[in-house]
Amino acid sequence: MNIMMIGDICGQPGRRTAAHYIPLLKKKYNLDLIIANGENSAGGVGITANVLKELLEMGIDCITTGNHVWDKKEVFNFIDTEKRLIRPANYPPGTPGKGYHILSMNNYKIAVVNLLGRVFMPAIDCPFRTADQILSKIKDQCEIIIIDFHAEATSEKLALGYYLDGQVSCIVGTHTHIQTADERILPEGTAFISDIGMVGSWNSILGVDKEPVIQKFLTGLPTKFTVASGSETIFCAVIIKIDPSTNKISEIIRIQENFKF
Amino acid sequence: MNIMMIGDICGQPGRRTAAHYIPLLKKKYNLDLIIANGENSAGGVGITANVLKELLEMGIDCITTGNHVWDKKEVFNFIDTEKRLIRPANYPPGTPGKGYHILSMNNYKIAVVNLLGRVFMPAIDCPFRTADQILSKIKDQCEIIIIDFHAEATSEKLALGYYLDGQVSCIVGTHTHIQTADERILPEGTAFISDIGMVGSWNSILGVDKEPVIQKFLTGLPTKFTVASGSETIFCAVIIKIDPSTNKISEIIRIQENFKF
Amino acid sequence: MNIMMIGDICGQPGRRTAAHYIPLLKKKYNLDLIIANGENSAGGVGITANVLKELLEMGIDCITTGNHVWDKKEVFNFIDTEKRLIRPANYPPGTPGKGYHILSMNNYKIAVVNLLGRVFMPAIDCPFRTADQILSKIKDQCEIIIIDFHAEATSEKLALGYYLDGQVSCIVGTHTHIQTADERILPEGTAFISDIGMVGSWNSILGVDKEPVIQKFLTGLPTKFTVASGSETIFCAVIIKIDPSTNKISEIIRIQENFKF
Amino acid sequence: MNIMMIGDICGQPGRRTAAHYIPLLKKKYNLDLIIANGENSAGGVGITANVLKELLEMGIDCITTGNHVWDKKEVFNFIDTEKRLIRPANYPPGTPGKGYHILSMNNYKIAVVNLLGRVFMPAIDCPFRTADQILSKIKDQCEIIIIDFHAEATSEKLALGYYLDGQVSCIVGTHTHIQTADERILPEGTAFISDIGMVGSWNSILGVDKEPVIQKFLTGLPTKFTVASGSETIFCAVIIKIDPSTNKISEIIRIQENFKF
Ligand SMILES: [Fe+2]
Ligand SMILES: [Fe+2]
Ligand SMILES: [Fe+2]
Ligand SMILES: [Fe+2]
Ligand SMILES: [Fe+2]
Ligand SMILES: [Fe+2]
Ligand SMILES: [Fe+2]
Ligand SMILES: [Fe+2]
Repeated sequence: MNIMMIGDICGQPGRRTAAHYIPLLKKKYNLDLIIANGENSAGGVGITANVLKELLEMGIDCITTGNHVWDKKEVFNFIDTEKRLIRPANYPPGTPGKGYHILSMNNYKIAVVNLLGRVFMPAIDCPFRTADQILSKIKDQCEIIIIDFHAEATSEKLALGYYLDGQVSCIVGTHTHIQTADERILPEGTAFISDIGMVGSWNSILGVDKEPVIQKFLTGLPTKFTVASGSETIFCAVIIKIDPSTNKISEIIRIQENFKF
Repeated sequence: MNIMMIGDICGQPGRRTAAHYIPLLKKKYNLDLIIANGENSAGGVGITANVLKELLEMGIDCITTGNHVWDKKEVFNFIDTEKRLIRPANYPPGTPGKGYHILSMNNYKIAVVNLLGRVFMPAIDCPFRTADQILSKIKDQCEIIIIDFHAEATSEKLALGYYLDGQVSCIVGTHTHIQTADERILPEGTAFISDIGMVGSWNSILGVDKEPVIQKFLTGLPTKFTVASGSETIFCAVIIKIDPSTNKISEIIRIQENFKF
Repeated sequence: MNIMMIGDICGQPGRRTAAHYIPLLKKKYNLDLIIANGENSAGGVGITANVLKELLEMGIDCITTGNHVWDKKEVFNFIDTEKRLIRPANYPPGTPGKGYHILSMNNYKIAVVNLLGRVFMPAIDCPFRTADQILSKIKDQCEIIIIDFHAEATSEKLALGYYLDGQVSCIVGTHTHIQTADERILPEGTAFISDIGMVGSWNSILGVDKEPVIQKFLTGLPTKFTVASGSETIFCAVIIKIDPSTNKISEIIRIQENFKF
Repeated sequence: MNIMMIGDICGQPGRRTAAHYIPLLKKKYNLDLIIANGENSAGGVGITANVLKELLEMGIDCITTGNHVWDKKEVFNFIDTEKRLIRPANYPPGTPGKGYHILSMNNYKIAVVNLLGRVFMPAIDCPFRTADQILSKIKDQCEIIIIDFHAEATSEKLALGYYLDGQVSCIVGTHTHIQTADERILPEGTAFISDIGMVGSWNSILGVDKEPVIQKFLTGLPTKFTVASGSETIFCAVIIKIDPSTNKISEIIRIQENFKF
């Protein structure tokens, strides 16, 4: 059982790059399941119905999100009906959408859980206790549990990793848009990486045009951030291999591809 | 000309690991100059006279720091006299110590500059403008300029990278203690990585014991952080190769070694 | 029924000032109940067994706290046994101590509830939902409910005030150590003030010596904060008058006294 | 010499209220000069050419601002030409507009200086050192110097107050929109208040409609903030009296009026 998790897909360059690599990697790594973070997939922030459709048609089986999930208002139209799109589970009870999704694949039940960090981020429910609550509900029915922990601070990501080590198949970080080189299998068997990185324009700052970001830092004045274009992009993901005889993670492989249109 | 920059050395396990790898890598990569971030070198936070001596005796030529530089009070005793130890340059005028150090090596003048980020960090002078001021003073006298940008946010690190691209030899990030997999040479020739990572205990959270960190996240109660022990450590660095005919960066190599005592 | 709530009592000067005014105001306003915030009562941060005893002997009936409640370690020795000392209720389940206290007085059941804000403060459970949970448990058994909302941002304080307006007798803010001039009765009958202010040294910054605070802002270097001494202090409180025929608040009176030893 | 400083004027209800009280108070207190913070004067955030004209026609002599100064784009059209409108002085060099304004009135030279805090606010230059720089330029030519310190934290406001005590006529805080009850004359003669408060809708949260703010705290979802309407408003200001024989502050009077259309 081979699962690929793709980092934050940023705008049209990100989608175009994802569409290019998904079939190639599916074949190369014999992938059974593909998950991607879609919080920046529509114009750099949020997700629309058209973009959702585009992502699903690429072969993505489940779309996680993060702090930008609500940025396009139309998400409220489909987040309650499209089960393959999830939002962080530690939003308060009553929030539209769901915080996890359970898929059936090759006789496995696989849960994908989305959580949001709290360090350097707006106030939200505790991701550690929310994870506990979800696990107590699903752990008996799912052989594989995958967590996308959308968070800023490396300390919080590692803390959740060790906290859940042995209880879930893997915890992958997203949100910083920069891939970290710390993929590993933790002592109790959970695969971990602090951040998968993004899929988007290469000569950019986290997928958006450099100049307005630099100007913002220099001047403190309001600037408008725009999805970076350009013919070079990056594709970041990780692949998790699960040993079917034990349901344990045997390997986590970091993927980083530089693409030119 | 080959230069190694080592990430935040964390406590005794970090120093022991650095002492092991420095001679090996010096030989393997024919290193001319070694720089290390020492803000966590004494007991996890700050630096003492003894630890400073230990680091210099390992063959480190210049020690950069960060937000933890002042944590051991005795640093005020030697930061004005030991020129090889620098602190972030964008502390206010009048701050003890210096923000950059110029070395002579193989007929090169090499400047090492230390800057602190402002996103998710305490208020301090603008790192972009401080860089401009230092460069205007030193760029004519130094063939090689290396910046350790000690910062949290990937956006601020990349923004400074692009802002100074072509004006300095390289900008390396430190502070998150997790190595990023984004080393590259920017369009105008400056080598860049968002974070070098750390040197310290492997089964830890950023070099400190896991349990108190996890408890802090779970309970919100005060906990005491302690340098993690254990016989496994990690060594993170980057090596920059400079072409002597052009003084340009020809390569940036990411180093990550797992060590067992 | 007349109730006085006293703001953050800061160190020895604060305790001395509280001891002076409590009997005077008890007589003048015919007070039935006295509540005080004690998070800074021992040496500026936290509370000790001796200080707790001293505060109770002054005639304080219930002591609320805030983010500094845990700063003196010995608090863990008595926070579970001394019911008159409470800590913010929105710490996670399992936290030592209790988040509210119910007293019987003049045939009234009076609940004192302590909550912590989240804007510009460390992550903690939602104060709005925690208030809902506590109210659902206690509202039928208590005629009077008083909330000390220990928070930084005026927006969060007013939002909780309006949110609970009509459901509780009063919401008073603490934490900024500066009294606000916005005491009022909200449209549905709940008394409100954004911040009661503090009890402590007058020629100080929030009760601590001015110079280290100013130096911290100027230099960014670590400084040691110390409780300000001096013979002038300020006493800040509010008095709530409850109409016994309706159990409704009839008045909120802001108290601010300047004291010289 | 009597000077009134008015807090953040919020939208149309704020402007209407200011227009009502300015002539009344001008007469009652024999005011020579009127200053107001206009950062929220146009629709709750920012300032437009029409609103600027309206404020000046009310008799306001100088308009200070704060973090919201740039929110209406058209401000860039007139901030360089309208000298009576100032923006925080500690934006970086090169920022449009000016950080202080010098008026001549009754044979006095009066400087109005605007500064922005850094605690809980975006990164900007140090307000303490910016104040020093401006004072070194203007203190010999101005008999009266007034500072609007637009900041969040009570600690930072008091620290700047004590730091400049004796060097300026007064330091008034703005930004929290809630008037504090701590007006006083500091030991060296500078008048001080932590926050003047606002001019705007009374049944509101800081001048904006309550419901979206409460929803934001409850849900964490994006909400649209709108200027609160309603026939009740509040007018907050302070009046400074300057003794013409000594040029010293003789009194600071806190003004708070509740208005019904
Ligand atoms: Fe993202
Ligand atoms: Fe994000
Ligand atoms: Fe560090
Ligand atoms: Fe650091
Ligand atoms: Fe306090
Ligand atoms: Fe507090
Ligand atoms: Fe404002
Ligand atoms: Fe403001």
